[in-house]
Amino acid sequence: MSAPDRAPIAGASGPLAILCGAGAFPLEVAHEARRGGRQPFLIGVVGATDAAIEAYPHVWVRMGEVGKLFAALKGRAIAEMVIIGAMARPEFADVRLDWGAVKRAAGLAQLFRRGDNGLLAGIAAIFEREGVRVLGAHEIAPRLLAPAGPLGARVASGEDETDIALGARLLEALSGFDAGQGAVVAGARVVAIEAAEGTDAMLARVAEMRAGGRLRFAGPAGVLVKAPKHGQDLRLDMPAIGPKTIEGAVRAQLRGVAVAAGQVLILERDRCAREADAAGLFVAGFARAGPPG
Amino acid sequence: MSAPDRAPIAGASGPLAILCGAGAFPLEVAHEARRGGRQPFLIGVVGATDAAIEAYPHVWVRMGEVGKLFAALKGRAIAEMVIIGAMARPEFADVRLDWGAVKRAAGLAQLFRRGDNGLLAGIAAIFEREGVRVLGAHEIAPRLLAPAGPLGARVASGEDETDIALGARLLEALSGFDAGQGAVVAGARVVAIEAAEGTDAMLARVAEMRAGGRLRFAGPAGVLVKAPKHGQDLRLDMPAIGPKTIEGAVRAQLRGVAVAAGQVLILERDRCAREADAAGLFVAGFARAGPPG
Repeated sequence: MSAPDRAPIAGASGPLAILCGAGAFPLEVAHEARRGGRQPFLIGVVGATDAAIEAYPHVWVRMGEVGKLFAALKGRAIAEMVIIGAMARPEFADVRLDWGAVKRAAGLAQLFRRGDNGLLAGIAAIFEREGVRVLGAHEIAPRLLAPAGPLGARVASGEDETDIALGARLLEALSGFDAGQGAVVAGARVVAIEAAEGTDAMLARVAEMRAGGRLRFAGPAGVLVKAPKHGQDLRLDMPAIGPKTIEGAVRAQLRGVAVAAGQVLILERDRCAREADAAGLFVAGFARAGPPG
Repeated sequence: MSAPDRAPIAGASGPLAILCGAGAFPLEVAHEARRGGRQPFLIGVVGATDAAIEAYPHVWVRMGEVGKLFAALKGRAIAEMVIIGAMARPEFADVRLDWGAVKRAAGLAQLFRRGDNGLLAGIAAIFEREGVRVLGAHEIAPRLLAPAGPLGARVASGEDETDIALGARLLEALSGFDAGQGAVVAGARVVAIEAAEGTDAMLARVAEMRAGGRLRFAGPAGVLVKAPKHGQDLRLDMPAIGPKTIEGAVRAQLRGVAVAAGQVLILERDRCAREADAAGLFVAGFARAGPPG
């Protein structure tokens, strides 16, 4: 279900809904969509989405207001949507189900019984069943994808390349599991593997291990490696890095950040490059053996 | 180089050196060795080993006093040794090299350039080169190994067995990497994977994710799964659990702890069973597909 399996949407036009998670990234995607000739319509989730989305045509919904959401899409004849930002698995008690949700109850109930991949695939299936095609941010805003090669001024050394290759192999080995998308490799040794805690917490752990002497390296060491799982639906859960990732990598005293080229989103790319340069880190896209799927 | 490849030592007798890491476990092994008819001679490392080893014939050495260590072994005609407890990779500056170390400098220098497996294999090779056979605690004290099946009163449910099987498969997939030996699986989802931080820190992370709402389960959920890597030299780096592990599992609100039967050491077994029972946790050994090696 990732991009290569789908008809290209280059040249697509018309309204595009953007279901917005937390942070500034939904606005970057809206900006790129508008640049590409689309009319973005932003959907904010109360308590999660930044109020800055109000710069665009928008509607606010609460978790569980599925009927209101579909009515907003149908009232504007919107047939395509992008879902941006990690969707936290809602606690059942936090959800306010409206009538539109109750009608779709069987599908929604399943969402609470699956891993992250299952949750997101279920959300996409619910939209597609109603005739709303779910696109990936990478399809709307390909300029936000990691390029091949360096983003800033620094480049990976030969030893860094060894660490990157080891991290990429590790992520391949983990790919069959609905677990993490990241690892830290230093001196040809796997020092941290991401699962439910997420990338930022993993980087904080590496910083702690260095401060506490559990990891001993003189000066910067190691690389954060990120890549999507095989079979991961990139429309829904594309790995992403941003200034927070760079900051975490600096605190962990890494030498750089390497992401699968074309398969990882970079939030605020210019700022990432600038801050990485200032700290002496490289940020680079690496070529993967094959596309996920 | 694990146990199955080596001549059985049942019926072996004579003096046995025990190079003691931190904690009470070296004393448990000494006790079992004496029960088995051996004469334990304990080697304490200044600053690392518990003073309680002085209950047995012993010698104290500093990190790097390799010459003193070999002299102690040779003076007592000791040809077999067990190394107990994780050997922290010493900072080069902490090491005081004596003449015996300098003579072996090339071999020692290599230890600082490898992963955990390499470090320990290097230490073993240095001893074996001098005619001191390195045994595993499991060869001297098989009663300290995890049995198949439950240790205490609780047993794993069908859902727990699913989590254990998923964790075991994950550890198999990671086995080719010099990374961790543990994972936490909850509700058929991998929530934490151990690397350099160790099992206790991984369990603390799961406890934090539950407290912070990142992992949402009603009541106890999930299993800590531990197994050695393939090719791991069990003489040197056998995974172990103990009361601290049980305590960490209780804090992480797990349902239980599952370890590869016959391949993981259990420190203070009775206390582990008692404390797990009191907290309502199961502790069990699971059968692995095949022996590591």
